[in-house]
Amino acid sequence: MDLSIDPQETKAILTSFIKTYVENAGNNSVVLGLSGGVDSAVVALLCKEALGAKNVQCVFMPDETTPPTDTKHEQLLVKTFHLHCTEINIAPFVHSFQALHQRLRRMTIANIKPRVRMILLYEIANETGSIICGTSNKSEMLVGYFTKYGDGGVDFQPIGDLYKTQVCQLAHFLKIPKPIITKPPTAGLWLGQTDEKELKMNYSTLDKILYGLELKLKDVEIQREAGVTQTQVERIRTMRVKSQHKRRTPMIPKLGIRTPGIDWRSPVQEG
Amino acid sequence: MDLSIDPQETKAILTSFIKTYVENAGNNSVVLGLSGGVDSAVVALLCKEALGAKNVQCVFMPDETTPPTDTKHEQLLVKTFHLHCTEINIAPFVHSFQALHQRLRRMTIANIKPRVRMILLYEIANETGSIICGTSNKSEMLVGYFTKYGDGGVDFQPIGDLYKTQVCQLAHFLKIPKPIITKPPTAGLWLGQTDEKELKMNYSTLDKILYGLELKLKDVEIQREAGVTQTQVERIRTMRVKSQHKRRTPMIPKLGIRTPGIDWRSPVQEG
Repeated sequence: MDLSIDPQETKAILTSFIKTYVENAGNNSVVLGLSGGVDSAVVALLCKEALGAKNVQCVFMPDETTPPTDTKHEQLLVKTFHLHCTEINIAPFVHSFQALHQRLRRMTIANIKPRVRMILLYEIANETGSIICGTSNKSEMLVGYFTKYGDGGVDFQPIGDLYKTQVCQLAHFLKIPKPIITKPPTAGLWLGQTDEKELKMNYSTLDKILYGLELKLKDVEIQREAGVTQTQVERIRTMRVKSQHKRRTPMIPKLGIRTPGIDWRSPVQEG
Repeated sequence: MDLSIDPQETKAILTSFIKTYVENAGNNSVVLGLSGGVDSAVVALLCKEALGAKNVQCVFMPDETTPPTDTKHEQLLVKTFHLHCTEINIAPFVHSFQALHQRLRRMTIANIKPRVRMILLYEIANETGSIICGTSNKSEMLVGYFTKYGDGGVDFQPIGDLYKTQVCQLAHFLKIPKPIITKPPTAGLWLGQTDEKELKMNYSTLDKILYGLELKLKDVEIQREAGVTQTQVERIRTMRVKSQHKRRTPMIPKLGIRTPGIDWRSPVQEG
């Protein structure tokens, strides 16, 4: 199973897409959340290539659970690639939402954070006449490892068809500093959280299972290719199904165009 | 042009949809924003019918630009139909987001409000194991008269296929107090704002144009049916096209499955 990409081709396709999408939206600039992780680093560089550095406004939005390494890496990225970046501490916003309840579940708080970031990004975008560039990768989107209307609340998703391991391959090609690519990925939603601990699997394995499902391989083949058990395949399949609602627009019951004289309570005649 | 609905049939279809959707999501309760307007009143009553009053948590979220009539009507609805409703003043949240800039454009502030409401609704839903029921109607959705990831940020939209005038017809059938149905609709985003002032058209006319476009009538027919000029038809058509991005998920450039040995830079051979 070969998940490798042609990084030069991929870079060309994605920068061209970004340029066209932003132009078609009647804009020339984007706003994006820079986290210090590899996904947003790759997106920032693709946007810079597509639109020019002055048309890419990065926003770093840490709080008390942001790992210090992420702050260091964000600074390293800004310095190395001459990015425009502002910083907003989201802690006061999150605390004010938390204060409404005595004690919130960890997941409730974890969802508030990316939603606060969404509001802040759109506030900047509305003021500057820009659109929001998302930074989600295909792996996390397929298992629903993102917050609906939080980090999922963006205008377009340039790396949404790249698995995490492919994002890392592109990151190497873009000369992103190695420590940013190799550190354990984290959404920074609580202290000590890492994606792979939560997913109970590393991204390399997850990507193979997801790619196997995409290729519609038989479960036994996926097990062999990814080196996993049937239980693990089933678990990822279930995550994909259960998170479907996060990848579609809210469902609307279609009422259709009414045909006068037809009573819906009688059996419908076909043909 | 007949936009009338069979209210009994419509009520039956929508309550059945709500029940099924909530059950399939693995839940039995919903959270929804009650504004004192007709749309959320209709949705609250449909949810109550479908799930039982105790499984419908309404949340009234006013701020300083909420018309006093809306507050009065919200209270009237709660009392008349025995709804469960809590109140959260969103002003402090909105102000803290505003404080980041010296002076914000009116539209930027108008977008922050529904997004704050979205966070609050999901906070309650996450704590109680519920899902969020949207209250958008077809007319406002088709012209993009809603905030992306704000009032548009919900789990399902039961009245999303009902034009505003059809929602009002259903409201009469559901015995919603007349003043709530007949008052000028407003999103309450700034003082004195009404939808029809902003749309430069009343909903009855707007709905006829939108229905004409849905039926793919010729522009001259739409003009005649709705009693409007070609300029007005064009304006609504443009609003519909320009707001398309609000009704779809963020665009992802498809990279596809790579075929080894094929160089994307060479012309592609068909067949």
